[in-house]
Amino acid sequence: MTKLSNAFYAQSGGVTAVINASAAGVIETARKNQNKIGKIYAGKNGIIGALTEDLIDTSKESATAIAALKHTPAGAFGSCRYKLKTLNENRAEYERLIAVFKAHNIGYFFYNGGGDSADTCLKVSKISKELGFPIQAIHIPKTVDNDLPITDCCPGFGSVAKYVAVSMKEASFDVASMAKTSTKVFILEVMGRHAGWIAAAGGLASTKDSPLPLVILFPEITFNRKKFIKKVQEKVKKFGYCSIVVSEGVKGSNGQFLSDQGLKDAFGHAQLGGVAPVIANLIKEDLGFKYHWSVADYLQRAARHIASQVDVDQAYALGASAVKLAIEGQNAVMPTIERISDHPYKWKLGTARLSRVANIEKKMPKKFISIDGFGITPSCERYLKPLIKGEAYPPYKDGLPKYVTLKNKSVKKKLSNNFKI
Amino acid sequence: MTKLSNAFYAQSGGVTAVINASAAGVIETARKNQNKIGKIYAGKNGIIGALTEDLIDTSKESATAIAALKHTPAGAFGSCRYKLKTLNENRAEYERLIAVFKAHNIGYFFYNGGGDSADTCLKVSKISKELGFPIQAIHIPKTVDNDLPITDCCPGFGSVAKYVAVSMKEASFDVASMAKTSTKVFILEVMGRHAGWIAAAGGLASTKDSPLPLVILFPEITFNRKKFIKKVQEKVKKFGYCSIVVSEGVKGSNGQFLSDQGLKDAFGHAQLGGVAPVIANLIKEDLGFKYHWSVADYLQRAARHIASQVDVDQAYALGASAVKLAIEGQNAVMPTIERISDHPYKWKLGTARLSRVANIEKKMPKKFISIDGFGITPSCERYLKPLIKGEAYPPYKDGLPKYVTLKNKSVKKKLSNNFKI
Repeated sequence: MTKLSNAFYAQSGGVTAVINASAAGVIETARKNQNKIGKIYAGKNGIIGALTEDLIDTSKESATAIAALKHTPAGAFGSCRYKLKTLNENRAEYERLIAVFKAHNIGYFFYNGGGDSADTCLKVSKISKELGFPIQAIHIPKTVDNDLPITDCCPGFGSVAKYVAVSMKEASFDVASMAKTSTKVFILEVMGRHAGWIAAAGGLASTKDSPLPLVILFPEITFNRKKFIKKVQEKVKKFGYCSIVVSEGVKGSNGQFLSDQGLKDAFGHAQLGGVAPVIANLIKEDLGFKYHWSVADYLQRAARHIASQVDVDQAYALGASAVKLAIEGQNAVMPTIERISDHPYKWKLGTARLSRVANIEKKMPKKFISIDGFGITPSCERYLKPLIKGEAYPPYKDGLPKYVTLKNKSVKKKLSNNFKI
Repeated sequence: MTKLSNAFYAQSGGVTAVINASAAGVIETARKNQNKIGKIYAGKNGIIGALTEDLIDTSKESATAIAALKHTPAGAFGSCRYKLKTLNENRAEYERLIAVFKAHNIGYFFYNGGGDSADTCLKVSKISKELGFPIQAIHIPKTVDNDLPITDCCPGFGSVAKYVAVSMKEASFDVASMAKTSTKVFILEVMGRHAGWIAAAGGLASTKDSPLPLVILFPEITFNRKKFIKKVQEKVKKFGYCSIVVSEGVKGSNGQFLSDQGLKDAFGHAQLGGVAPVIANLIKEDLGFKYHWSVADYLQRAARHIASQVDVDQAYALGASAVKLAIEGQNAVMPTIERISDHPYKWKLGTARLSRVANIEKKMPKKFISIDGFGITPSCERYLKPLIKGEAYPPYKDGLPKYVTLKNKSVKKKLSNNFKI
């Protein structure tokens, strides 16, 4: 009887409200298949943990702790921003990976991340062929940017979308109350440097039952001050106030980020600002309205307290599916979400070849942005609406969510040499 | 049989996640006492509605709609920032109020607001004596700033406190995941220009079960760059990362707001920024750490989706109490929250004379700030903890909270002349 292969699981890139739900899907499914798969070792801080042999033994965690990952945001094992070079560029990295995998009898590589991570995962999948070491690499999709191809949506996005839609609704109610004598314009800056998926989600705040005067600034649309100001003026005239969602990635006609305004403080030092205060300043200069602005930043992607149930379910299912694909003997694949219908929302799991995923960015379709460039279309709404469905509340204690912090017990190192990142 | 007097209710100043719960308390209690109190007319946009005779007939709203106010943030009737002058300074305003009250048979004045509103309410309460018009003025406390005297806490604050504590916990989990190769410092800017109550609530994010490396910047403590940077450096050294809560009201040793940095854009225009990016810049300059920053702004006070149950209950109870005090014949008073015990948390309603409330700001006690000036003390924690208890979730439809928008039917005007604000 041969010894079962262990698995390596790591979280990569910007974390989300539901990436730990994928981790729970991986670990719980592996635990149910102990006759087919050995231990799950998690990389401490992503793939860096594999390179430095900093492995975490997830078998030391209780079933309760692993289940609690389903309602705990961020990366329970630590994440990293680190992209493997090609085999030609840095052969030593691959040899080190093989040394660590061999030392710990690792035959499965589960990598939980976005576009860059899919590329890393694809590179690892090739070790098998190119360096003759048997490893199956499976990528588990995760990105608030929602920009991975093939899969209908990416875990992490639905919860950010819900956060942004709920926040815009709430802030719009607030500014509507204040508009008579005070604030008339509210601006929320959201993530999305290259694609407007998150900004688009702000559009969901306005519904047929409760229409709101929203203006959305997408990174896909070159900012035009005159048109924008005119649009805001129209909204304030009609509704008494206006709510603006602005993507951090909005650019001017010079191709530069609007947030990159060359701000200097009193001492002449460069000041890094967001785009929200820049927009606020334009409102003040051109319209004279009182404004308020907010920058959601990490709050939006960490907001497990208002996570979408659909998002949590899909994140978990994709983690579970990765283990099943591994057991089936697959390599260089990524489980995906396939949409069956919008309403009622139905989805199933699919599979994509990693070669068709890595380094390909899914842009928001043009038909999702309204003709004036400041709103979303009905087809965009149909796409987005199901993704924010359901409230997956975490348990609370004393008024705070009960998020788990794992013990993260280290696996004893077996290699004598260190590896420098 | 004399005709029952009607009541005027208005919302004032910055709105909150639970001010509408107070409105529900007023209206539902009045409806239960229809043999003692007539109609409840709400001021459109606060007291301005009384001056311009823009009254809303709340009797046109269904019981369901009024009940839904309990879970709807912001001001359902509109609010305003408007302080009545003294009788000597603007007698015309008071004469106008009397004319409107007389025309609509208004004998009760319920004013729902903070310190400025308490002052306005006190002035109205004097009409009775000084101008001989019978009116009972009752103030209903509301302010996220938690700075009204006598009452143990102010409705609106508990929910902001919960939002800030939950958000800091979530963002801290996020930055902890990223710290190895990326962001090491996260900064959240919160409200509180004069008092650090809201910033202090960030301290609740760190618990015995789940300690977090928090640094709090209070408006009560003069900012000292060297000490601050040292503190952040210590936290990063020990925990690998650091989370900072900064109050918008933090000032430097020159007495100026830190946010007021004389920023200029590329064209030399003044740029209004928050304090979070200023703090971020100091981190970059002195420590070189990668950072992220967020400005919560309206999101924090509008976040009904994560409101505290204690806060909602108290807001409602204070609205209900105001009506009972009116029926008892009281004038120039404000119902208050009296704390009986911290743990288990017990509270009851009390009453304060408005003359002891108006224009008095309750500062945060010195003993609530730790000796180093960057954290909260155990006594502060004991005070704050009960206020964020319980999750008063709103109902949802299609992934979004079902907030109510009232019909807000106008009462027919009876006066022929208009009044200019």
